[in-house]
Amino acid sequence: MNIGPTPQLALVALAFATILIPSVSAQPPIDNSATAGEWQALPVKAESPAANPTTAEKVELGKKLFFDPRLSLTGTVSCNSCHNLMEGGDDGRPSSMGVHGSIGPRNAPTVWNSVFQASQFWDGRSPSLEDQAKGPIVAAPEMGMPAHENAIKRIAAIPGYQTEFRDVFDSENSVTIDNVVKAIAAFERTLVTPNSAFDRFVQGDRSALTDKQIRGMQLFSDIGCTECHSGPAFNGWDVGSTTQTFEEFPRNAESQLVGQYGLDRDLGRFAATNRKSDKHYFKVPTLRNISLTSPYFHNGAVAKLSDAVRVMSETQLDTELSNEEVESIVDFFSALDGEFPSIALPRIPSRPGESVLEDQEPAAVGE
Amino acid sequence: MNIGPTPQLALVALAFATILIPSVSAQPPIDNSATAGEWQALPVKAESPAANPTTAEKVELGKKLFFDPRLSLTGTVSCNSCHNLMEGGDDGRPSSMGVHGSIGPRNAPTVWNSVFQASQFWDGRSPSLEDQAKGPIVAAPEMGMPAHENAIKRIAAIPGYQTEFRDVFDSENSVTIDNVVKAIAAFERTLVTPNSAFDRFVQGDRSALTDKQIRGMQLFSDIGCTECHSGPAFNGWDVGSTTQTFEEFPRNAESQLVGQYGLDRDLGRFAATNRKSDKHYFKVPTLRNISLTSPYFHNGAVAKLSDAVRVMSETQLDTELSNEEVESIVDFFSALDGEFPSIALPRIPSRPGESVLEDQEPAAVGE
Repeated sequence: MNIGPTPQLALVALAFATILIPSVSAQPPIDNSATAGEWQALPVKAESPAANPTTAEKVELGKKLFFDPRLSLTGTVSCNSCHNLMEGGDDGRPSSMGVHGSIGPRNAPTVWNSVFQASQFWDGRSPSLEDQAKGPIVAAPEMGMPAHENAIKRIAAIPGYQTEFRDVFDSENSVTIDNVVKAIAAFERTLVTPNSAFDRFVQGDRSALTDKQIRGMQLFSDIGCTECHSGPAFNGWDVGSTTQTFEEFPRNAESQLVGQYGLDRDLGRFAATNRKSDKHYFKVPTLRNISLTSPYFHNGAVAKLSDAVRVMSETQLDTELSNEEVESIVDFFSALDGEFPSIALPRIPSRPGESVLEDQEPAAVGE
Repeated sequence: MNIGPTPQLALVALAFATILIPSVSAQPPIDNSATAGEWQALPVKAESPAANPTTAEKVELGKKLFFDPRLSLTGTVSCNSCHNLMEGGDDGRPSSMGVHGSIGPRNAPTVWNSVFQASQFWDGRSPSLEDQAKGPIVAAPEMGMPAHENAIKRIAAIPGYQTEFRDVFDSENSVTIDNVVKAIAAFERTLVTPNSAFDRFVQGDRSALTDKQIRGMQLFSDIGCTECHSGPAFNGWDVGSTTQTFEEFPRNAESQLVGQYGLDRDLGRFAATNRKSDKHYFKVPTLRNISLTSPYFHNGAVAKLSDAVRVMSETQLDTELSNEEVESIVDFFSALDGEFPSIALPRIPSRPGESVLEDQEPAAVGE
């Protein structure tokens, strides 16, 4: 496979980083016709929608709720349980384990940079972070609440939350599911990881990537990965866009790898829309921090990133890569690891001298 | 019940705060014969043992391990799952839920200030924080690892941990179970909550407690609670002591409350020692931050702190308290809520491009 002149690629990438590009002088003129807009740095900050403006107090409340396991039936599963901010924003499991040890049907997507997409969940059935956050609370294999009312009853019984909701939403009785998810979404909008080596590279720091990573970057483009994995989050989404790209996966269902990993058992977006044309269609997932979010794909069946690259090139692009080529792309992916913001552990409010989890059975007999 | 002259009590308390007592002038002479040493402020810092000296790097490593769910079989349960530092250092459940939704036999004790006791677990079967930390990793209803080796294999496979263990313990191949628990214990020694209203009171700030709390404090002493709940952590432990107080619970098994809450079904320390004289004996638990750690007792059967006070006064002290008396003690207990240190969420290291939880089954079918 022709790797091409890497310095030229670097300059093209540099010139067309559409966001945050610093002024860089003393660069030679470049041909930008081929890859205009192809490489984009991640925004360092996400916009908030008019219906849910971000405030510092709302973010702080949302952080408490994000980490509060009492939103789950058993008091053991918080948003952070499956979207662990201490690592890749997922849980490292093929699919998540919720209340009572129940196991969900799909791999937990990362919450990092989830603001940089126009729809949520693997099948894109949710149009916003607010809407998405309502789902897991009442999903039987996740937080397992019978209804949102049960979660609201728990939260509303905690004096500290009552006060904080009133202050943030400027009204009495503001502990509602809509406000709970507004606060969580406001917090999630702060979960961005800019300034990866890749971002520094496209902003002009030629030394930010190794030669091998640059080869991987060009190969990633040359074989067509960027046709779907485009935009600042490598997920087919452009800044400001309200639509999301869905693609068929696997495209080549005859590939031996499809059977090996059971990749064709999930009908994807069809389950959400019931449209035949959506069968096996999935939202294009972000590749940001991909080296931290093993295992891979909707079913989490592929543990190694190198195998995931092989699956994609063979099933989606009919391209068989050499080991060295796979390695260069994996190496490029490590350059997509961003800077994680420092987060102070929240203090989640208590109900002094009283239980929040009143419906939980006491232990009957000691060990 | 005679409440007595509260200003005198306050002065006695002030004079005999044995730790951190600031110099306070212009106080009248006091009679200290009755309660010498009864009231002690919590140390702001815990000593570390010679065998495991605390260093900043070890604490940081221990924090990562404390929050790392990959120490559990399913990758879902960390130390923090049951000893949640975001609230009272417990999980708010009657008894904890571990891997696969399994439920343990006893209420999770708080990890806050656990350094201020000479033995760990309800039955005191563990002599140190280091020894204690080994237990849950391989307890079937907790983290559920078949053996410590399985946990070590996971941790040792993570390059970032390899480096950090080598730096902290200054030797190669230092990812061992002994070093894992040394790091966790070093972190736990930082988990102290000084400067409660009570502490400020015994250090001389007469305004730190309300009159009602002072009445509760004296009542707590008058009826005999302090016979067992003594020392800076209210758990029968003195600073520097290597022994721990165990007491029979319930003492009066005939009390109607014992049957109501099933408090006599656990044989306590007997299970650890097999000595008949240890039947129904338990370690005296700390009362620090007690208002944040509902539900109460070894089986977590009592949800309200006021009911817990009634249980204790009736079953242990043959004393029936009025509602107002119970309230004053509960109010005093709220003065034991300390200052929680600010903790930055750790970044737990990954195994780039590879799974840490290789033994977990992928999801088979999408939803």
